[in-house]
Amino acid sequence: MKATGIVVEYNPFHNGHLHHLNQSRQKTNCEVVIAVMSGNFLQRGEPALVDKWSRTKMALKAGVDIVIELPYAFATAQATDFAKGAILLLDAMKCESFCFGSEEGTLNAFQHTYSLLSSKKEEYNTAISNFMKQGVSYPKALNEAYKLVSLESTQPLLDLTQPNNILGYHYLEATKLFNTSIQPETIQRIVANYHEDAQVDETIASATGIRKLILDNQHLEEVQKFLPESSFQQLTEWTNTHHTFGSWDRFWPLLRFTILRHSKEQLANYAEVTEGMENAIWNAAVKCEQFETFMHTIKSKRYTWTRIQRMLTHIFTGFTWEQLAEVNFPTYLRPLGMSKNGQTYLNSIKKDLQLPLVSRVAASKDPLLQMDIKAANLYYAGLQSTISHQMIGSDYSTKPIIY
Amino acid sequence: MKATGIVVEYNPFHNGHLHHLNQSRQKTNCEVVIAVMSGNFLQRGEPALVDKWSRTKMALKAGVDIVIELPYAFATAQATDFAKGAILLLDAMKCESFCFGSEEGTLNAFQHTYSLLSSKKEEYNTAISNFMKQGVSYPKALNEAYKLVSLESTQPLLDLTQPNNILGYHYLEATKLFNTSIQPETIQRIVANYHEDAQVDETIASATGIRKLILDNQHLEEVQKFLPESSFQQLTEWTNTHHTFGSWDRFWPLLRFTILRHSKEQLANYAEVTEGMENAIWNAAVKCEQFETFMHTIKSKRYTWTRIQRMLTHIFTGFTWEQLAEVNFPTYLRPLGMSKNGQTYLNSIKKDLQLPLVSRVAASKDPLLQMDIKAANLYYAGLQSTISHQMIGSDYSTKPIIY
Repeated sequence: MKATGIVVEYNPFHNGHLHHLNQSRQKTNCEVVIAVMSGNFLQRGEPALVDKWSRTKMALKAGVDIVIELPYAFATAQATDFAKGAILLLDAMKCESFCFGSEEGTLNAFQHTYSLLSSKKEEYNTAISNFMKQGVSYPKALNEAYKLVSLESTQPLLDLTQPNNILGYHYLEATKLFNTSIQPETIQRIVANYHEDAQVDETIASATGIRKLILDNQHLEEVQKFLPESSFQQLTEWTNTHHTFGSWDRFWPLLRFTILRHSKEQLANYAEVTEGMENAIWNAAVKCEQFETFMHTIKSKRYTWTRIQRMLTHIFTGFTWEQLAEVNFPTYLRPLGMSKNGQTYLNSIKKDLQLPLVSRVAASKDPLLQMDIKAANLYYAGLQSTISHQMIGSDYSTKPIIY
Repeated sequence: MKATGIVVEYNPFHNGHLHHLNQSRQKTNCEVVIAVMSGNFLQRGEPALVDKWSRTKMALKAGVDIVIELPYAFATAQATDFAKGAILLLDAMKCESFCFGSEEGTLNAFQHTYSLLSSKKEEYNTAISNFMKQGVSYPKALNEAYKLVSLESTQPLLDLTQPNNILGYHYLEATKLFNTSIQPETIQRIVANYHEDAQVDETIASATGIRKLILDNQHLEEVQKFLPESSFQQLTEWTNTHHTFGSWDRFWPLLRFTILRHSKEQLANYAEVTEGMENAIWNAAVKCEQFETFMHTIKSKRYTWTRIQRMLTHIFTGFTWEQLAEVNFPTYLRPLGMSKNGQTYLNSIKKDLQLPLVSRVAASKDPLLQMDIKAANLYYAGLQSTISHQMIGSDYSTKPIIY
């Protein structure tokens, strides 16, 4: 069976995701689609709107065949490591290809950009360092350095100010760096701007926009048209049981408590907390009653909003620089759910898998997996719903969803 | 001016406390009563019902002249260190005497018991160790050892199964060990049993009983008759602003989150967490949605309820064995409030004080004081009332209450 991979967060699964899923299937002519999906904390350094099990159901109902959890350590990492974890898992799942959405939409520019940046690696890195020294954020330094090294190129190159182009670039890079046999494909995203709040047409809106509508209004009617019916139903079911959604606003009392439980020096032990940010974070936490004002207080030119949120995620979950340094490659395959078709595929490749397939989580001592379970426990604690308090500890025994 | 000291928690201030206060004044014929009072966490290892400022107001309105905060490190310590901190602070405040309530009621038995146990120190300690090895709790081992060494004594001795006799014994011991000039006095407590829920007469009930009535019913009418009018008013004011009280039930979501944010090994770093209790605590936290069931799950013969709650207090506030080991003597005098009379007294002794008088807290780097402020911040976070969220950080700038 021919399998293709996709890398997703589905926060929540919407019509744009459905388009990507269907296009990926069509373009690669595959029989099985495997999604590597983040758990309860995401690359933007945020708790997911709804938990990974609920998002897995959305994925399966929309046609994904297998959902594999991207471990916390990769899911909440910078783009390079996020991409590394995702691509290596898809490769381990014997995908022939993977297909990512990008603003660019053609693979050509990705290949050229990769060739250019590999050949000018030293020049590029020096330029990045120099821009960083001027006090700009890492993404901004990347862009300026990129402009510099691409000045003389005659090939079509990527626009690396676009977030999905950046991620796609790192996917491609990961396939090269780790000598995978998995073939990249890209399709153009319908939503031009990932950060856009407003809808592009009447049925497509960005996940960011959809989340904002949901969190601002706490009811789902307004976003219904942007979601497949199955996603809408899933979100409705979630609302009816939890009466709340995952967000930093919701998690803020616990995050604030956790920050103030530490000294500034201790905060600097958590992953991605650098250069005095521990002081800014601690000082703002004493003062700010709302997450929004807290973020505006600590935001500086030096760090992106996303990067700061990742620091906060690691403080919340207690994930340290030391733990981060020990992260190397994915060490297990944890299916969160699968279709009958996915099950058939998994049985066909089972004997050739290089990574252990995790089904009984409680028995594993793998530090990456322990971190996933910890993150799940703390996510449910953060939600503070009657049901979520009961769900603490459930990640030890929840079996993959068969759909 | 002649000053006498008392050691209090006032959780909350009730008619029994008023009796103790008035009797202390009468018995010592003093002009000033100075109370050393625990902050927001108490010796039973619990968050206080209402914060230290509110309890200070109760004390002042009832006639206490000066309230000095017993630092967190002593206030939440075992009886020996609790007594040491309290007595040294009263001594530092130039009290001629101090007066404690006890089940015994006469000083004679305290003196005899102290002489006996000092003379048979080795025998006593060996016996304690032996009983501990049989797996009984520390208080129980103390009692059995005490029975053993006091067998041949012909003097009147203390009943050391009574909690206030125990505390009183440690007060006396502290005056001897640290060569203070402060003179002990004792008066008989009206409430015979500290742990008793029910009232002894129509106006006296134990603080435990009063707290239980308040927490079970969340309204104050039922306890009104046990409190001076000023305490009742103070509690009413608190209820009207916070709509909740400090208790482990209230703090449990944050405590549970904090426990699960740690590995079992990390939990063992917190003060008083010994002999595998980290495992019991962690395992029970995964399962238990309520504090009550959590406690019943981890309770064993080995530890008293109070001792376990102190472990939890230290986990909650992040107070480690390492920090505990560095605690030696009180290093400052922090008045939480005073009457005009108290102010006059303080001015009269100011120049002779051996410890710094702390008024501007924000400026101090004293680790004990930093811990007090941290405990205050976390207490307000734990209360989770709209007002308490605003009060985080207030302990840096709150000035002593002048009444």
